[in-house]
Amino acid sequence: MKFGRFEQKGRIFYGIVEGEQVTELEGSPFDRYQATVKKHALGSLKVLVPCVPPTFYCAGLNYAAHIEWANKRTGGNRKVPEKADIGYRANNALIATNETIVIPDDSPGPVEFEGELVAVIGRKARNLPERDALSCVLGYTLGNDVSERTWQKQDRTLWRAKNCDTFKPMGPFIATGLDPMKLTVTIKVNGATASEYDTGKMLFSAQHYIAQISKYMTLQPGDVVWLGTDGATEPDLKDGDVVEIVQKDIGVLSNPVRRAKI
Amino acid sequence: MKFGRFEQKGRIFYGIVEGEQVTELEGSPFDRYQATVKKHALGSLKVLVPCVPPTFYCAGLNYAAHIEWANKRTGGNRKVPEKADIGYRANNALIATNETIVIPDDSPGPVEFEGELVAVIGRKARNLPERDALSCVLGYTLGNDVSERTWQKQDRTLWRAKNCDTFKPMGPFIATGLDPMKLTVTIKVNGATASEYDTGKMLFSAQHYIAQISKYMTLQPGDVVWLGTDGATEPDLKDGDVVEIVQKDIGVLSNPVRRAKI
Repeated sequence: MKFGRFEQKGRIFYGIVEGEQVTELEGSPFDRYQATVKKHALGSLKVLVPCVPPTFYCAGLNYAAHIEWANKRTGGNRKVPEKADIGYRANNALIATNETIVIPDDSPGPVEFEGELVAVIGRKARNLPERDALSCVLGYTLGNDVSERTWQKQDRTLWRAKNCDTFKPMGPFIATGLDPMKLTVTIKVNGATASEYDTGKMLFSAQHYIAQISKYMTLQPGDVVWLGTDGATEPDLKDGDVVEIVQKDIGVLSNPVRRAKI
Repeated sequence: MKFGRFEQKGRIFYGIVEGEQVTELEGSPFDRYQATVKKHALGSLKVLVPCVPPTFYCAGLNYAAHIEWANKRTGGNRKVPEKADIGYRANNALIATNETIVIPDDSPGPVEFEGELVAVIGRKARNLPERDALSCVLGYTLGNDVSERTWQKQDRTLWRAKNCDTFKPMGPFIATGLDPMKLTVTIKVNGATASEYDTGKMLFSAQHYIAQISKYMTLQPGDVVWLGTDGATEPDLKDGDVVEIVQKDIGVLSNPVRRAKI
C-alpha cells in the first residue's frame, strides 16, 4: 500500500495511491483513518512531503563504499563508524517531489545528491529490541540528502552544508510492507543513472538504528530516519538539472535544480 | 509581557502571565490571539514548554570563558569558533519546568547543566539584515542544554550527549521587550548559585546568529535559537538534585533530576 499527502485548492489530506488514482482518506495513517468515496486523478493533485517530522533523524555515514569514495574524492579521512550514532537534519529544508532545489548564490560547490531510503515511524515507541524494531515503522519513502561539499568541510556543523532551504527533498509516497534491507535505490541525473546501490550493504541495519535510537529517545508518529547513501554522489548538481531518486515500490522523487541569482 | 502555554484537564491554551495570575488567550502569540475573560491561578495550571519548535537551533559554543573552562576540565582542545555556525537539538528531549531530567541508567557521566538564553521566533523570516534581525523574535525564554560529557567525547554526533529524552528543559515563559545582550543568567543547583553570566559576553550576538541563519533558512513561528552558555557547568547533576535556570524577567526554569534504575 502507498500513502501520500496531497493538496488540492488549499485543502490538505492523505490518500492511498493506486497507479494514477488516489483514494482520499479521512484522518491520517499516523493515527486513525478511513477511506472515503472521493477518488482523484494523481495528476490533479499537488504532492506534498509525506509528513513533517517532529524529529528528523539521519544516519549520515552508513555505507562503506560511499565513505571510501568520499575520502578519495576530497582527500578526506572519514572513518567507517564503529557504532550507530544518529545525526539530525532540519525541517526548514524539506521539499516535496517536483519542487525545486535552490543552490544559494554564494555556494562555492560542488553540491551533490545523496539518495537515501527513509524509514517513517508510525507509532510512539521506546526501548524496542532490535528483532522487533521495525514494528514501529509505518513504511518507507525516499530522501535526497543534498550536500554542499565546501561548506561541509569548512563549517563547524552541517547547518549550511545539509540544511539550506530546499536541500532535503523527501517523498513521493510512503510504501508499506517492504523489507528495508532488500531494496535497490537508483539515482538519476537528467535521466541517466548516476549511482545505484542495494540497501543490504548498510553498515548498521534499519532495525539496529531504530532500536539504538529508541534506547534513549521516544520515537513519535511521523518521525523519519534517513538511512544513508552508498557509492559515488557525482556528477554535482547544476542549474537546469533534474535529479531523481528511484525505488520501484516507493516511486520517483524528482526535483529540478536552480541556482539562486545574486 | 509574559506568554505561557498551559494545560488544564487535558485542554491546552496560551495565556498571559501577570504575577500569580494567568489570563487565558484565544489563539496563540505565534498567530493571532485575543485575551478572554477567563483568569486562572498560575498554581492551578500545568506549565508546558512554551512552544514545540518546527526547527530547534542551538548555538553550541558561544562564550569564551565556557570554552576555556571545558578545555581545562576535559583536557580538550575546542577552539573559539570563527563564525556563527548554528547547530541543532531534537524535540523528543524537550520538557517543561518542573518536569524531571532522567539520566539514563548506562550514563557514565558526568551529566552537566548548561543554562542558556533562548530566542523564540514569532514570525516567518528570511534574509534579515543584522540590524533588523530581532524584529522576527517574539520574546525570550530559558533552556537547559543538559549534556552527558562522556558521550559528548565518545560519539560521532551529539545524539545521546545532548538529546536523550528529558535533556532539553525549556521555559517557563516567553518574555517580550528584552534586550538579549543585556541579561544576567543564573544557574542554581539545590538552591546554591553554581554559575552566573552576562549575555553581553556572547561571541556572536543574538542578532548576528539570527541574521546568519536567515541567510540560508526560512525561520518559522515557534522556531527557537538557543544562544549558548558561559562559564563552568559544574557541579554535575545527580539523582535527587534540583537545577534552576534563572533570569529575573523570564522566571525560573526548575527541574528535578533522577537517575533511571537499571
